Amino acid sequence: MKLVEAIIKPFKLDEVKDALLEIGVQGMTVTEVKGFGRQKGHKETYRGQEYTIEFVPKVKLEVAIQDNQVPRVLETIARAAKTGSIGDGKIFVRDLNAAVRIRTGETGETAL
Amino acid sequence: MKLVEAIIKPFKLDEVKDALLEIGVQGMTVTEVKGFGRQKGHKETYRGQEYTIEFVPKVKLEVAIQDNQVPRVLETIARAAKTGSIGDGKIFVRDLNAAVRIRTGETGETAL
Amino acid sequence: MKLVEAIIKPFKLDEVKDALLEIGVQGMTVTEVKGFGRQKGHKETYRGQEYTIEFVPKVKLEVAIQDNQVPRVLETIARAAKTGSIGDGKIFVRDLNAAVRIRTGETGETAL
Ligand SMILES: Nc1ncnc2c1ncn2[C@@H]1O[C@H](COP(=O)(O)OP(=O)(O)OP(=O)(O)O)[C@@H](O)[C@H]1O
Ligand SMILES: Nc1ncnc2c1ncn2[C@@H]1O[C@H](COP(=O)(O)OP(=O)(O)OP(=O)(O)O)[C@@H](O)[C@H]1O
Ligand SMILES: Nc1ncnc2c1ncn2[C@@H]1O[C@H](COP(=O)(O)OP(=O)(O)OP(=O)(O)O)[C@@H](O)[C@H]1O
Ligand SMILES: [Mg+2]
Ligand SMILES: [Mg+2]
Ligand SMILES: [Mg+2]
Repeated sequence: MKLVEAIIKPFKLDEVKDALLEIGVQGMTVTEVKGFGRQKGHKETYRGQEYTIEFVPKVKLEVAIQDNQVPRVLETIARAAKTGSIGDGKIFVRDLNAAVRIRTGETGETAL
Repeated sequence: MKLVEAIIKPFKLDEVKDALLEIGVQGMTVTEVKGFGRQKGHKETYRGQEYTIEFVPKVKLEVAIQDNQVPRVLETIARAAKTGSIGDGKIFVRDLNAAVRIRTGETGETAL
Repeated sequence: MKLVEAIIKPFKLDEVKDALLEIGVQGMTVTEVKGFGRQKGHKETYRGQEYTIEFVPKVKLEVAIQDNQVPRVLETIARAAKTGSIGDGKIFVRDLNAAVRIRTGETGETAL
């Protein structure tokens, strides 16, 4: 199992969520974060306004998936989150050793 | 070392925290998140109110622990976080390569 | 690649960020969290005020870096985040299997 984490522009959340639902992702978790990449937050355009602050508001999306879903999930997020301008975000993939679905007690891939 | 992450119902946080303290967990980190699972947030009851929104407020609890604590921590969180109705949450376990306790400079398991 | 996560005192964020920029870190993500360590939040001093609550506000800083940057990043965070009093925080290191820079489609270390 893998945990795919994407840090994206907040106004792209709905589009990314819908694209992931379409390919069969079952659940996700969202956190409000702030950050910067190579431009150090300078001159980044956020929802049409120019900012010269250092930390820019972003949304972190986490999806726990099966190993074989990784390529499709990466493509889908990258496509749906992309505007083509700076600050579009990053996707990180990490291993997931175990998962539990609390209500049913299921573990492993069936718990996702 | 492992990082156990649980996404639970917010009103269950105190109960889960107390249960973890009882079994000797030394520290934890909490983040306010929102998410959905298989019901896509529809018809999920949150603190007694019906919602038909897609993202439901949840709390993410992270505990860094030793490998041998994992089974007990999983059982404890699952028991304390369970209400039996949908949306009770998920637990994810991931590897932790290294840990540092900043004040003392300790590293590894003694830093947890 | 590694993901280094530091949970630090909020007023130390700027100092840690500047120290990381100085050693060439390209980007970071920040989340507002709350937590406690061995003192269970009791008697922890936060920005000059005494609290006897259990969860103390902290900031979680995440940096995705190359493997060879880990020792320097750990030293830098630990030095910049340290006040010498309780609650200075923890640093956790985890593996990163893959990374994507959404705008350019770059993957792997060049995507960081
Ligand atoms: N190395 C990193 N570690 C952790 N988080 C990062 C890193 N790089 C970027 N991020 C997160 O991703 C968000 C978006 O980054 P961003 O898309 O600006 O990256 P970039 O490399 O500057 O690419 P671009 O040139 O397209 O802007 C940042 O606001 C930050 O939250
Ligand atoms: N695959 C997933 N990836 C990331 N986060 C998830 C995933 N599934 C669930 N979550 C997180 O866990 C929270 C609780 O999920 P939930 O308990 O509703 O899962 P479920 O599979 O629908 O189980 P149930 O049928 O008991 O409701 C969600 O709000 C979301 O934040
Ligand atoms: N085992 C842990 N798992 C997850 N998060 C932790 C853990 N221990 C500490 N933290 C996080 O780090 C923050 C700072 O912890 P803290 O520095 O108080 O650790 P400590 O071990 O008590 O060290 P000190 O004695 O210097 O206070 C906590 O508020 C919490 O968010
Ligand atoms: Mg950028
Ligand atoms: Mg559900
Ligand atoms: Mg402490």
